[in-house]
Amino acid sequence: MSVVTPVCAPLPVLGRDVTVPLASGGETTYAALDYAASAPALQRVWDDVAAYVPYYGSVHRGAGYLSRLSTDLFEKARATVAAFLDCRADDQVVFTRSTTDSLNLLAAALPADCRVFVFETEHHAALLPWNSARVTVLDAPRGPGEAVATLERALADRDDPHGPALVCVTGASNVTGELWPVTELAAAAHAHGARIVLDAAQLAPHHPVSVRDLDVDWVAFSGHKLYAPFGSGVLAGRADWLREAEPYLAGGGASRGVVRRADGGVEVRWQEGAARHEAGSPNVIGAYAIASACTALTEAGFEALVARERYLIEKVRAGLGDLPEVRFLSLFGDDAPRVGVLSLVVDGWPSADLATALSAEYGIGVRAGLFCAHPLVRTLLDGADATCESAEGPSALRVSFGAGTPDEHVDRFVAAVRQLVSRATSPGR
Amino acid sequence: MSVVTPVCAPLPVLGRDVTVPLASGGETTYAALDYAASAPALQRVWDDVAAYVPYYGSVHRGAGYLSRLSTDLFEKARATVAAFLDCRADDQVVFTRSTTDSLNLLAAALPADCRVFVFETEHHAALLPWNSARVTVLDAPRGPGEAVATLERALADRDDPHGPALVCVTGASNVTGELWPVTELAAAAHAHGARIVLDAAQLAPHHPVSVRDLDVDWVAFSGHKLYAPFGSGVLAGRADWLREAEPYLAGGGASRGVVRRADGGVEVRWQEGAARHEAGSPNVIGAYAIASACTALTEAGFEALVARERYLIEKVRAGLGDLPEVRFLSLFGDDAPRVGVLSLVVDGWPSADLATALSAEYGIGVRAGLFCAHPLVRTLLDGADATCESAEGPSALRVSFGAGTPDEHVDRFVAAVRQLVSRATSPGR
Repeated sequence: MSVVTPVCAPLPVLGRDVTVPLASGGETTYAALDYAASAPALQRVWDDVAAYVPYYGSVHRGAGYLSRLSTDLFEKARATVAAFLDCRADDQVVFTRSTTDSLNLLAAALPADCRVFVFETEHHAALLPWNSARVTVLDAPRGPGEAVATLERALADRDDPHGPALVCVTGASNVTGELWPVTELAAAAHAHGARIVLDAAQLAPHHPVSVRDLDVDWVAFSGHKLYAPFGSGVLAGRADWLREAEPYLAGGGASRGVVRRADGGVEVRWQEGAARHEAGSPNVIGAYAIASACTALTEAGFEALVARERYLIEKVRAGLGDLPEVRFLSLFGDDAPRVGVLSLVVDGWPSADLATALSAEYGIGVRAGLFCAHPLVRTLLDGADATCESAEGPSALRVSFGAGTPDEHVDRFVAAVRQLVSRATSPGR
Repeated sequence: MSVVTPVCAPLPVLGRDVTVPLASGGETTYAALDYAASAPALQRVWDDVAAYVPYYGSVHRGAGYLSRLSTDLFEKARATVAAFLDCRADDQVVFTRSTTDSLNLLAAALPADCRVFVFETEHHAALLPWNSARVTVLDAPRGPGEAVATLERALADRDDPHGPALVCVTGASNVTGELWPVTELAAAAHAHGARIVLDAAQLAPHHPVSVRDLDVDWVAFSGHKLYAPFGSGVLAGRADWLREAEPYLAGGGASRGVVRRADGGVEVRWQEGAARHEAGSPNVIGAYAIASACTALTEAGFEALVARERYLIEKVRAGLGDLPEVRFLSLFGDDAPRVGVLSLVVDGWPSADLATALSAEYGIGVRAGLFCAHPLVRTLLDGADATCESAEGPSALRVSFGAGTPDEHVDRFVAAVRQLVSRATSPGR
């Protein structure tokens, strides 16, 4: 398989020169290939944070210069994120702690009788926050068309066709990296009177997201996967359900006015904008770091980064594709478009042993397990060689990369897996 | 009034050399005197974060060297916080985003029929998270003894004396800085079969906290007030109610196992430890920063910092005490022990105008308003000169400082208020 020439260099990230010890003695530079869990910080993000931190001040009602500067920076971060996501003019950007938090916030803001439709293939953060009595879990589809048809059938069959409904779907799988047909699923949702939230935790770091073009109602993502690991995430989208919901957290910032009532209790007037769901002092550094990452990806030329990532994906697939012991996990077929997240199993190697060997012998950081998407990985592993199982049961190996990954990390991974596969069995067996 | 000699130097913080423009032209170093909202980062905290960030990696199931290092660092941060708070051996340390988040977590974890007792004097973060149907709001006491007597009466009078009950109380007021009689309130709570949570948002940055000695069941605080503004907070204390509660957020990390049920739904096994309430990728940098601050305060000698802060408090009180136009807000009397948080009103000056003038003319950052403690500030302002009111209604001015505050900031504040008071009226009137 031919490998195309990359169109841009990787973006500088922190930790690119970090060395780690090897079991054989000596050391090597660390190859961070677990971006799908947490990506390293972009150097640019770190530089922006470092330049800002001396100017950090209390936000909102502080009268001092640094308080006003910090408040301005925090509110501008919302605008930067809205532009990055190509939001509609009246969409709201709420800063949360993570994608998990964003989806839990949305779950708490749903109309009381809202039905939720979600594929079993979702990350637990998208699978579990919903009131289970009102959730329909859809079986894993084996292609984008089947996904749309499955959703349409479920929405058409619901017992309350005029009540509120929400579809929650990932943009890119955190296990297979495969892109989901978001535009088509959004159209199907809307055709059946439902709304849709996009879990962009794995999509946003790897691919431009246009809320407007995809026509999704909300999008959620995390800073720590978007090269900005400072504790913030985002929920962006329609303001109406958020405005009508009880505040996510009760406290300062979310409350405009509090008075004692004649009966001794307290009466609260809540905020109506994003602050309604952001009680407590906001994580200004986290929000600013996300905005910095959005700017950095945009200015670097996101399409060029996408092309570079495709080139790295092809390196992995071409580099291991001829090995009969290696099977990539896929729902939509090996040639389905994907981001830089690939899971695989290797005959004769429990995935956990393989991950340990890659770390100890090659300084490569990957991950073995079920990746917080248990139903999906079990479905994908169905029929896999039992030799891939660890003591804890079935598991896969995931390699993932992104804007900061040099060719050498991926080349090293491919060469290491080839060497390890050539051993008859894992040392742990 | 005599001013005692300080026993130690301020700790180095970021932003100590930042200069800001003055309305008169020129510039001056910024005097950050809004610590009660957010404190600057300790230089030591920043240095620790900067040294760690290149080694940042995905925590928990990542197999790579940096993942294991980061997981270790995150779990050690729990132990450091537990030691800082002098927790009991079986207490749990949960990392949250803030005190607000910590108290909302505890509110979500209460037994269904739990009664809550809270003084109206609390910050909204401690006043509002509880299920309002089960809350008893207690009137502001005018002394520590009255606080204990009021609580005892309310607990004794409750209609369900054997059911679960929780008392929520601040350690130090975010408005007056006054210390509350936590040990006595905890004893009263326990004598009546209730539990108690300490809101230590304003106490922990200014004063050692011993969960064991105070005999409180939980304690909550925020990193951003403890010189570690990286988006994390803490809830520490009894494990039982937390273990028995539904997970605070649903998602990865909190879920040990997820399987499809025969009826199509999903069955979840949740974690039982701190992870149960920490779904989503944890804010490792935020947790590490808090641990670094705990270590820095301990190593600097917390008692010496307390003594230094008392000296600064006396500077403010002695420096302004002779001005008839200035009134300090106090619930327990001017001589009550307090941390470095003082609120005041000045006859002839709306507090917002005063705060603006302090910023524009002197480079001093303070705050005017009701400080997210509306019922308390209204009670304290009752009878205040109406000239202190802003267009938005009554408000006070708050000055607050801590471990990083040099004498000069406090001296500048005192001199500035004296100069502004000597003007007949504010320029904004």
